[in-house]
Amino acid sequence: MSTTLNDLYAVIAGRRGADPKTSYTAALFAKGKRKIAQKLGEEAVETVLAAAMETPDAVMRESADLLYHLLVLWAEVGVTPDQVWAELERRSGTSGIEEKNSR
Amino acid sequence: MSTTLNDLYAVIAGRRGADPKTSYTAALFAKGKRKIAQKLGEEAVETVLAAAMETPDAVMRESADLLYHLLVLWAEVGVTPDQVWAELERRSGTSGIEEKNSR
Amino acid sequence: MSTTLNDLYAVIAGRRGADPKTSYTAALFAKGKRKIAQKLGEEAVETVLAAAMETPDAVMRESADLLYHLLVLWAEVGVTPDQVWAELERRSGTSGIEEKNSR
Amino acid sequence: MSTTLNDLYAVIAGRRGADPKTSYTAALFAKGKRKIAQKLGEEAVETVLAAAMETPDAVMRESADLLYHLLVLWAEVGVTPDQVWAELERRSGTSGIEEKNSR
Repeated sequence: MSTTLNDLYAVIAGRRGADPKTSYTAALFAKGKRKIAQKLGEEAVETVLAAAMETPDAVMRESADLLYHLLVLWAEVGVTPDQVWAELERRSGTSGIEEKNSR
Repeated sequence: MSTTLNDLYAVIAGRRGADPKTSYTAALFAKGKRKIAQKLGEEAVETVLAAAMETPDAVMRESADLLYHLLVLWAEVGVTPDQVWAELERRSGTSGIEEKNSR
Repeated sequence: MSTTLNDLYAVIAGRRGADPKTSYTAALFAKGKRKIAQKLGEEAVETVLAAAMETPDAVMRESADLLYHLLVLWAEVGVTPDQVWAELERRSGTSGIEEKNSR
Repeated sequence: MSTTLNDLYAVIAGRRGADPKTSYTAALFAKGKRKIAQKLGEEAVETVLAAAMETPDAVMRESADLLYHLLVLWAEVGVTPDQVWAELERRSGTSGIEEKNSR
């Protein structure tokens, strides 16, 4: 269902400051913003390559990895999912996506 | 609200096959999978750089661009948001995120 | 011939501080490090996609774009080609490439 | 000296078909084009982040990693360094870099 990303974000944010030995997420936070951003970039490369050379199922799995690391980055820098949903709605509500991206 | 991505995906998918002159989304579909994947990669680079050098607000806006292009890629290759949410739930429900990513 | 990158770097470095209207390179320097790094990332995405989906000729052309923007980045942050060649020789001379990358 | 990349390319190309257990390079070739392209993309992300957040020395080291994996990709798809140098010279000789990139 559609609350998945909000729920997952809450779980992820709850692991900030936890013992890095207890979870992959806590370990990522312990490594800091540079490493989290690096992982996001790497998962994007994998998603691009899955789209170029592999099956829809591979795109789906790499996209899940990408979204997970994006949520970790949001939690790290202090962005909430609701802020991003509001931005997307603002753009589409005013045809903003079309306008903004037509540059 | 949390149905934003599902709603946006429906709008995006509805533009497949539309006249490329009528919207940025239709124009992206007309250019094909390679160009859509390229845009996804470029927005990921921008999100990484926003995290590294800019404000949370910039990360929020670049993330919105990234998600929009990710949804276009899903529509292009035939992945639905619900498939990705199911994958994310499957992983977290079984502690799968921790396990899968601990490689 | 093999001095191409050193020669090109000298030309590029000579355009730092030049009027941005006079050349693409001068305009890139005027935009600053963030924009130069972004262009490097974008050209890498294009090289990856050329390798995945296109001809060797496309890989060759995208690689030329990638190298050009890498040299601009080096000039921006104060790295010289000779420093990079020395690093590559140091690694291969001591089998360092094998060792370093086998992590 | 400036023949470094040509020399390194010759060493790399000589490892195609070698036992993957004998070197990192041979192991990369054994994994194939998709994995090599992925590594190139990942090293580009690291170079971008080094430029954004670290020292010139870090940019130099990540650039060496990037170039090494670019050479492996060239050997994989059948591009030679001399073809890329010729392309770069063709562009700069005719002011082509300025023209091509000013789009």
